[in-house]
Amino acid sequence: MKMSEGIEWAIHCCTLLAALPEGTALPVGRLSEFHDVPKDYLAKHLQSLSRAGIVQTTRGPGGGYRLGRPAERITLLDVVEAIDGKDPCFQCTEIRRRGPSAVGAAAYKKPCGIARAMWSAEAAWRRELQKVTIAALVAQAAEEVDPKQIEKSISWLERTTGG
Amino acid sequence: MKMSEGIEWAIHCCTLLAALPEGTALPVGRLSEFHDVPKDYLAKHLQSLSRAGIVQTTRGPGGGYRLGRPAERITLLDVVEAIDGKDPCFQCTEIRRRGPSAVGAAAYKKPCGIARAMWSAEAAWRRELQKVTIAALVAQAAEEVDPKQIEKSISWLERTTGG
Ligand code: FES
Ligand code: FES
Repeated sequence: MKMSEGIEWAIHCCTLLAALPEGTALPVGRLSEFHDVPKDYLAKHLQSLSRAGIVQTTRGPGGGYRLGRPAERITLLDVVEAIDGKDPCFQCTEIRRRGPSAVGAAAYKKPCGIARAMWSAEAAWRRELQKVTIAALVAQAAEEVDPKQIEKSISWLERTTGG
Repeated sequence: MKMSEGIEWAIHCCTLLAALPEGTALPVGRLSEFHDVPKDYLAKHLQSLSRAGIVQTTRGPGGGYRLGRPAERITLLDVVEAIDGKDPCFQCTEIRRRGPSAVGAAAYKKPCGIARAMWSAEAAWRRELQKVTIAALVAQAAEEVDPKQIEKSISWLERTTGG
């Protein structure tokens, strides 16, 4: 089971946008330059984030993407669901209703116990993702990321946003 | 994010094999008949289960698949990893090492905090899957599945294994 590559890009974009100076924004071209990923592909993911209200666009000179709400209120679950959707990872095709043991539809009102167990494990995963906010990731990065990299990121941001 | 359809088939096969009378086995053709799924496709998944020791084959007349160890010692995690592999669902491509903020390799010894958060959520999912055994699912099914379906399954098993 694989998550789409876009998840990594999207989370990194959110942490970068969380670090933007107040009142500034980054166009998709700058976001793709900073992360060195293809612009068209990134644009698609940013549109998904935008539909979910995680980012928003501002127009005009200096326009571009910024966070759609405070980084404290954006969780990893929000980003994962914006990019990969909310469908369960485990797909139950109701295999129990097929073959020689099948009985009438009335017997299948309750979801299959196997599906319930699989979904309940997924729920634990989602709960963990929901506990982690973009703000917490930024705070952690401030502690952990090499100071030189932080310095280079800030000076790139200042150059890019004309600050 | 989607799990492969084979997961549902594989778990259902394991619960059926757990209900087999002692000393009997089911060939792939019977397993595909019972679940009404394509035989070739199911055979591929059974081979994956076999490589993981979850099922084993017996040869000769009455030969076929049976569980490779007691159902109490087969978990949902075992089956999921046998079919979909053990790779993390979240793939970190080390995007942090790219673009204008990149610094020397020494700065990246510790995995990225974003990847660690994603993997830790996956670990919670795996822990939940590990708590559920095939034996527990069979016991639950015995309580919940329509008595008529259980009866039809048992009589199909008896006919099929010549019991
Ligand atoms: S019928 Fe879908 S998991 Fe059992
Ligand atoms: S570099 Fe891969 S998740 Fe951060």
